[in-house]
Order: sequence, then C-alpha cells, then structure tokens
Amino acid sequence: MSSSASAPASATARRALPDAPFLLAARGERPSRLPVWFMRQAGRSLPEYRELRAGTAMLDACFDPEMLAEITLQPVRRHGVDAAILFSDIVVPLKAAGVDIDIVAGTGPVVASPVRDAAAVAALPELDAEQVVPVAEGVRLLVERLGETPLIGFAGAPFTLASYLIEGGPSRNHERTKALMHSEPEVWHALADKLADIALGFLRVQIAAGVDAIQLFDSWAGALSPRDYREFVLPHSAKVFAGVADSGVPRIHFGVGTGELLSDLRDAGPDVVGVDWRVPLDEAVRRLTATRPGSAPVVQGNLDPALLFGSWPVLEAEVRRIAEEGRAAAAHIFNLGHGVLPDTDPEVITRVVELVHSL
Amino acid sequence: MSSSASAPASATARRALPDAPFLLAARGERPSRLPVWFMRQAGRSLPEYRELRAGTAMLDACFDPEMLAEITLQPVRRHGVDAAILFSDIVVPLKAAGVDIDIVAGTGPVVASPVRDAAAVAALPELDAEQVVPVAEGVRLLVERLGETPLIGFAGAPFTLASYLIEGGPSRNHERTKALMHSEPEVWHALADKLADIALGFLRVQIAAGVDAIQLFDSWAGALSPRDYREFVLPHSAKVFAGVADSGVPRIHFGVGTGELLSDLRDAGPDVVGVDWRVPLDEAVRRLTATRPGSAPVVQGNLDPALLFGSWPVLEAEVRRIAEEGRAAAAHIFNLGHGVLPDTDPEVITRVVELVHSL
Repeated sequence: MSSSASAPASATARRALPDAPFLLAARGERPSRLPVWFMRQAGRSLPEYRELRAGTAMLDACFDPEMLAEITLQPVRRHGVDAAILFSDIVVPLKAAGVDIDIVAGTGPVVASPVRDAAAVAALPELDAEQVVPVAEGVRLLVERLGETPLIGFAGAPFTLASYLIEGGPSRNHERTKALMHSEPEVWHALADKLADIALGFLRVQIAAGVDAIQLFDSWAGALSPRDYREFVLPHSAKVFAGVADSGVPRIHFGVGTGELLSDLRDAGPDVVGVDWRVPLDEAVRRLTATRPGSAPVVQGNLDPALLFGSWPVLEAEVRRIAEEGRAAAAHIFNLGHGVLPDTDPEVITRVVELVHSL
Repeated sequence: MSSSASAPASATARRALPDAPFLLAARGERPSRLPVWFMRQAGRSLPEYRELRAGTAMLDACFDPEMLAEITLQPVRRHGVDAAILFSDIVVPLKAAGVDIDIVAGTGPVVASPVRDAAAVAALPELDAEQVVPVAEGVRLLVERLGETPLIGFAGAPFTLASYLIEGGPSRNHERTKALMHSEPEVWHALADKLADIALGFLRVQIAAGVDAIQLFDSWAGALSPRDYREFVLPHSAKVFAGVADSGVPRIHFGVGTGELLSDLRDAGPDVVGVDWRVPLDEAVRRLTATRPGSAPVVQGNLDPALLFGSWPVLEAEVRRIAEEGRAAAAHIFNLGHGVLPDTDPEVITRVVELVHSL
C-alpha cells in the first residue's frame, strides 16, 4: 500500500450524524425506528438508473464522480432508505491499480491474464490513493448532498477478489482458487495479502473522503468449508477490518450462503454481520454468540430478494417475521439477504421501506 | 401417471447382490470396505466419454440404449467404483413426455414455453412408461453387463424440475419459482404434484427394468429457506420416495448447499441423505438426528469436487478426514459433495477410489 493510501483516516470530511437510525443500530443501539437499506438498491431495478447509465460502461460510471454520486442518490430519493451505499464495483480498485479487468454485460468481471502463480502474484500492482481520486470526489459530492442520510463505503473481500483473478471471471465452483489454496498455500496467502492491502487502501480513501460506514463484500465465501475459510480467508479479511478500526466507522461483513460460517465471519472483526435468507435471524444470533456468550451481535438482513416478486400479503408477513426474529440481536438493520434483482419492481421496494418504518 | 408407468415395481429383472458394499451401506450396514462412487462420474471428465459422445446431442445420448449403457459403464471399468449411476439427465422424462425442452451446450436445459400459470400447468403432459422405453432398455443392458456392481437409477426432484420449467432455463436466484410458490400456491402445488408423478413414473420404469437403488436430485433445494422447503417442496419429494417404497430399493436424496435443510431432506423419506462439503459429516449426522434421537442416518458425501484439482497430500488428508467423520453415521457411502467437474483429471478419481478402498 502506498503512503498516500494509508493516510490517517482521521483527516476526514465526515458528518456528525448522531441521530441516524442506521448508524445507531450499527453501533449496537436500538434507534427510534428499524433502519432499512438494500444491497444493490442503486442499479438496474430503477428506470432513472437505466436512463442515466445508457451508453456508459459500468466501470466508466464507477470512475465518474458526478455519475456515481447521482446513481448513489437515486434510491435514497425514491425509497427513503436509511443509508446510501456508494455505487461502485468490487473490481474498481483492481482496475484503478492497473489490472487488465473489465465488466462484460451479462457475464461479469473478466480478467485478461488470470493470476495463478507466484510470478503473477508478484506482478500484481499495489493501489495508490491517487488512482481512485474520482471515487473520493464522488464521496465528497455525496457527503454534501445526502443531508442526514449516512453513506456506506464499499470494497470486495480478498477471497472474492482472488476468485475473479484466479478463475479469470465469475465461477460457480471456484476450483482453481481452491486448488491454489491447497496446493500452493504460500502463493495463495501472498495473493490474499496483497488483495487485503488493496481493499484496505480503497476503504481508507473512502473513509478519508467522508463515508460513515463500510461494508466488505465476500460474496462467494459461502462456497468454502468452514475449515478452509478459517485457514485461508479469515486472516486476510481480518486484516482489512483491523486496518480501518482506527477510523471508528461501523464495519459490516457480508457473504451469501454463509450459514456455516457466521461465527467465523464475526471473528474477522466486523461490527455487523450480514445474514442471507437461509438462516432465520434468531438462529443466526444463536450461532454468532455460540462461542461468545453474552456478546449479542448486530445483524443485517435477511429478506429473500426473490420474495419481492411475490404477492404483498406474503411479503408483508415475511417482513414482519424478520423484524420480530431480529429482536434476538443487539440491533438489527433490515436488508435483503442478497442484492436487489434487476427485474424487481421498485415500487415494491418503496412499500417495504414504508412497512419497516411502521414497525 | 399412466397405468403402465405405475406397473408393480416387483416385476423386475433386479439382480441379487447380497455382498455389494454400496447396497449394504445404503441399508445401514457397515460393509467390509467403505463404498465409493462419484456423482457425474460418467461424463466429460473421461476422454472415452468425449470420444463416444462426439457428434451426438446430450438428449439423443440419453435415449440411445447402447450409448447410455456404455457411458454408464465407462467409469466403472476405469475407476473400479462401487456403483454405476444411470447416464441420464433430470429433464429426460419431461422431454419424453412431450415438453419442448432441450439441453444447450454451455447453458443447460432451455424450455421453449415456460410454465407460469394454471393453464400451462394443466397443459403439462403426463409421462407414459412407453415414452421412456429406451431408458428401460439401457437399464436392462446394464444389468446384464455390470456383473456385481449395483446400478443407481436417477430422477430430478419436483422443485428442481419446476425451477427449470418456470424460469425457462437455469437460474441463479429462482425468483419466478419462489414468486409462484408464494403468490399462487395452488398453481405451485399442482405443478409440483404433476412433476412428482413424472419423477415417480420415471423411477418406477427404471426399477422395473432392474436398477438396484435410486437417487432423487433436488440440486437447487439449497436456494430455499427451511420454511419454504417444508411448506412447498417436502410434501412433493415425499410423494416420490413413498411411491417407490414398495420396491425395496434404497433411496438417496441429494441437494447442494442444504446444510440448513438436512433434517427436512430426511423427513422426505429417503434411506440415505447426501451432504455437500460445507458441513462435516459428523455435524451432518448431529443435525439429521436432532429431531430423531437414536435413529442414526446413512450419509453420502462429502468431498469438495474442487479439491480434486489440488495436490495429492491435501486430497489424501481430506479423504481420510471425511472417512473418519463418516463413522458418526450408521453407514457412509463415500462420494463428492457435488458432481465431478468437467476438467477433473480422471486419474485423480481412480486414485481416490483406491485410497477409499484401502481405509
């Protein structure tokens, strides 16, 4: 990590938002209303997003301060959610650092030269904060424009970033990644450590520019056995969380299909653990406290995004059930168990926000 | 279901295989050696398969008795596994019944007219045993040629079949399927019931022709919350298992990412529960017995197929660990936690079989 990327996170433009329900809950308090936001709330479900993005490539949008700020604001205006999440992509810091990677519509991130040996790991560039200045500028615009709504920063976790680099693109089975872990653990750990530094550098830039919380996305961690997660992944995600601890902003950790990994995800050091829809929140709280009696966690989740396609009575009952089960936690931030699906009717999302706020 | 598809399963050509380790284990006994087979052992990992299939479409191969028999035999000859599994596909009975469905290379099953309302469900054809005569002929050829090796029959479970029909093809999120369940439960249950009859009819044909066991694949069940699984899926899978109970052949149930669903999968009525790699077998046994104290289950699994790409020392240690953890069960059938990946080196598979047999 360059010296500029590791600039003290205390030199920030961060707002004082003492009454923001999202931030209160993220710190383990019970705010006056149940806070709610949605992963991928900014994006293809919104017609105003599709209009604004028309003709602009995904990664170009992520490096355009005005566009990324506007996209980030759209769901806040429309839905009245309790937090904005920076419009970005987990590959943004890789692209910024000089990795030949692109996002192909309908496929996902595609890497020109997959990283599969020690030489490729050594050649992987570091991130200099100068390379993500447009993101920092976007954050500064958002801090000016968001009023009382907190802004969540965004980075991909080392395992999920590594899987894209090793497999060369999206992978269902992550076989080359797992093979590298087990066959050449030194190469794996060197790669994951570099990616932890890149994620950390990217988050510190966002924190310095004023984000109020951060979320580390380890989207594919659920593909790992708990044994592999603990040995090969947890130390590197822990480095990221520890590296932003001095900033004092709440830190959220999220992955899909992580029912078996919940306590390990917590051991990586976040303040909030995201839970997908496969495990009810009360059971998630039980797992998160099994090895830490008396230490109630803060949870985020866990509505199945597919249920936004169903009937309102069923959806309403699910929202109420989740809010009820979330009472087992120290605090609960309502969210989906994964991102908003592109074909979701945005009016349903607005209605869910209203319902959550009425509970 | 037609009368011929529901012909008594007792009128079979089934062999007496009293010493087959796979069948002994499937019935809860501890055979002289740990039995092992691999999901997708017949298929693209084998050069002899790629040679034989060259120029033949997947579904054509599934309806060619000589070809499906030869493909089924290939891994038995090469690896010395303890069971053959019928080369087929979960959409075979749908195709046979007249559904306009095809398997597109690189994509998977694609349905011409997705089934999304009551009229489409009503129009879904039933399966007549006459329509799968080539599969029955293939089974008869295999019974003649397999010697002492048992043959496992094959069908897709109602939920996984329904997802393909409703979504129109492979789906990551199954959103239309979940929406139909919740918004129009009567339509969902009518569809799942028809698919249970189709799966049941297909299995009874295979049993009548001589298969020694059956496996019901609910590949995508892990996408469901336990609540949804119990309400919308379990009764229909249970109908399939109950419908072949009179045959006396062991029944295996399998899905991926089903750590939260293991006891529910067992409640559907199989004799053996497959476990993917995310849950260690001893923990799986604990979950499978949590609501049935004293009733030790038979488990199948649970090597991560990605580990076949790693180094031999790591793979050997994993195989030994899994065999050890499997001792918590009444009996254990060694297998992968999902299917063999296409790029797997078949020599590694042979070596795993030798190792398992040496334990």
